[in-house]
Amino acid sequence: MKTVLLNSSIVGTKTGILLDELLSVLKNEITEQDQVEKIELKDYQIQFSDGRHYLDYEGDTGKVIQSIMDADVLIFGVPTYQASIPATLKNIFDLLPKAAFKNKTVSFVVTAGSDKHYLVMEYQLKPILSFMKANIVSNYVFAQDSDFASGSIANDDVRFRLTTLANDTLTLARSYQKVYEEFQSKFDF
Amino acid sequence: MKTVLLNSSIVGTKTGILLDELLSVLKNEITEQDQVEKIELKDYQIQFSDGRHYLDYEGDTGKVIQSIMDADVLIFGVPTYQASIPATLKNIFDLLPKAAFKNKTVSFVVTAGSDKHYLVMEYQLKPILSFMKANIVSNYVFAQDSDFASGSIANDDVRFRLTTLANDTLTLARSYQKVYEEFQSKFDF
Amino acid sequence: MKTVLLNSSIVGTKTGILLDELLSVLKNEITEQDQVEKIELKDYQIQFSDGRHYLDYEGDTGKVIQSIMDADVLIFGVPTYQASIPATLKNIFDLLPKAAFKNKTVSFVVTAGSDKHYLVMEYQLKPILSFMKANIVSNYVFAQDSDFASGSIANDDVRFRLTTLANDTLTLARSYQKVYEEFQSKFDF
Amino acid sequence: MKTVLLNSSIVGTKTGILLDELLSVLKNEITEQDQVEKIELKDYQIQFSDGRHYLDYEGDTGKVIQSIMDADVLIFGVPTYQASIPATLKNIFDLLPKAAFKNKTVSFVVTAGSDKHYLVMEYQLKPILSFMKANIVSNYVFAQDSDFASGSIANDDVRFRLTTLANDTLTLARSYQKVYEEFQSKFDF
Repeated sequence: MKTVLLNSSIVGTKTGILLDELLSVLKNEITEQDQVEKIELKDYQIQFSDGRHYLDYEGDTGKVIQSIMDADVLIFGVPTYQASIPATLKNIFDLLPKAAFKNKTVSFVVTAGSDKHYLVMEYQLKPILSFMKANIVSNYVFAQDSDFASGSIANDDVRFRLTTLANDTLTLARSYQKVYEEFQSKFDF
Repeated sequence: MKTVLLNSSIVGTKTGILLDELLSVLKNEITEQDQVEKIELKDYQIQFSDGRHYLDYEGDTGKVIQSIMDADVLIFGVPTYQASIPATLKNIFDLLPKAAFKNKTVSFVVTAGSDKHYLVMEYQLKPILSFMKANIVSNYVFAQDSDFASGSIANDDVRFRLTTLANDTLTLARSYQKVYEEFQSKFDF
Repeated sequence: MKTVLLNSSIVGTKTGILLDELLSVLKNEITEQDQVEKIELKDYQIQFSDGRHYLDYEGDTGKVIQSIMDADVLIFGVPTYQASIPATLKNIFDLLPKAAFKNKTVSFVVTAGSDKHYLVMEYQLKPILSFMKANIVSNYVFAQDSDFASGSIANDDVRFRLTTLANDTLTLARSYQKVYEEFQSKFDF
Repeated sequence: MKTVLLNSSIVGTKTGILLDELLSVLKNEITEQDQVEKIELKDYQIQFSDGRHYLDYEGDTGKVIQSIMDADVLIFGVPTYQASIPATLKNIFDLLPKAAFKNKTVSFVVTAGSDKHYLVMEYQLKPILSFMKANIVSNYVFAQDSDFASGSIANDDVRFRLTTLANDTLTLARSYQKVYEEFQSKFDF
């Protein structure tokens, strides 16, 4: 099983801090055969989607798309910009084919300026993931500015919820994997 | 009064066809002092928002931002990508300050592959415009693939709704303008 | 101009406290010819919509529907139940015809248990009002449990926002009224 | 495993036709120990939620609540009213405790007047189910007026999607059940 964590924040550090913590929890939970990769979008030059087939992008754009398409599990780090997802993340979605997340388990962590943004991702992100056929982990970790101090998480509840999210993501991914295997074994003989 | 039409589609022609038709209706309705500008995002090299102040962007990015900030009326052309707005449009929003649309009247036209996407912009675009303090024109023009043929609009109902939208946008903009003038005249002496 | 305030909360007092405060602000702003009516849904026996024409309901149900249909301005008091509007309010909408709010200006005040519910009404209520053709006042007053104490509003900011909402609602209603009058005078001769 | 199908339509027959077809598919897929119950809300006198504890409702209201709370799998039949769920269904939710759907798998079938309503339930229903902690089946069956003729389903694609939904619902429910059993067996000794 291959897990990709993608940080769509290209400014600031908070979203990355959440993903790093989540990554260290995940590493304790997975087996040796499982792969984990973390992508920081700020390290890549990604172009805007121009409508071509996803396999026809080259360079950084092609590399990031391929990593996402190869993943069984995707965990997005999402800062809240103008009451929605950032353009950097929407662009990744635009580069991918329509049902890109079919048979993939997807979860996410969110940062925002205040609690009033809590529902943004319920309404702005989940319906897109749903359209792209993801198996969505229902809960997500939301952290606001006051949950951070001196470059790390200052709220134990956020840490606890990150652990819960890591476990829920792996549990859902493994459940679906069993289902797919059973489904496919029906057609083997 | 300055009106800016912004086509956020950088691939294909349908969204541009809607905006061109809307523009020709608008030109009959406005007075000589009124300015109208149409921006095709595909003609500009726009960078991703990196969190800096909107006045600090240069080149194409700075030019497009300035045109938007100077507008009294904004009309967006929006293709539907992955059941939401395209990254190109979200990026424009990300480049702007939080309450960028305060005292601006905003409307939009939408293209999509099928009627099933009709509500995408009600839920994905309007809440962002609302957060950015726009005076939103409630109705919008939605056209699907079958409403076009040979590079033009093939559905008279779409034409009719474009005329209605042009009128509704100008009416709302002029009503708000009167309200602001009355409001400001209270403080003049 | 006739304004109807409708409190859809049939349990508890917080939503009613907001509407009462709003009502006292409104009364200072309106003229002698303007009518204001406040409806407390808990004082009426309303039946579930059974699909019949709105004029065919009798008793309490018929009375409340008629008051709403006669209004030029509607202000709803809305408690947050299960991350959405209460069934009592949805039922009022279900009893009304499709475009019941055409040419009516609609605004609302909201109570909820915490700030995390702030966006509920942006996504659950506004799209319904939009479908029913309301002229929606974009901002709304949101108050959480901690904004109340000893049966009254304990947060001056909430009071200030109620005053703003009252003014914005009347301003929008009067602007639209002028627009309709101008529109109709075109057809008089 | 106990499955409850609840038809929230109290007028018309289309939503019931979808649920009946789904029920006949389900009956072929379940085992002898599995129970299935179908509730037609129109056969019950349900009162509006008045804030009391769910166990304190009596009569029809108490009976329906108890059936829902006892279910492992819930399948709702939902007609589209005023671009949202009907008040009859919202009232059922209001009567239930906050996290009523925790550890329950929930899916739904929808009827509407036209394809333009397709996304209503993505945005109006799923976020409520998510707040109430349901394991939501991501896909749903949507049928419009033209999919019915002479009191039955006139579109084979709708039938096919009902079969898919039945299977997906059972698959997800069984996957989660295994997860819970494994989780609980950790604490048994």
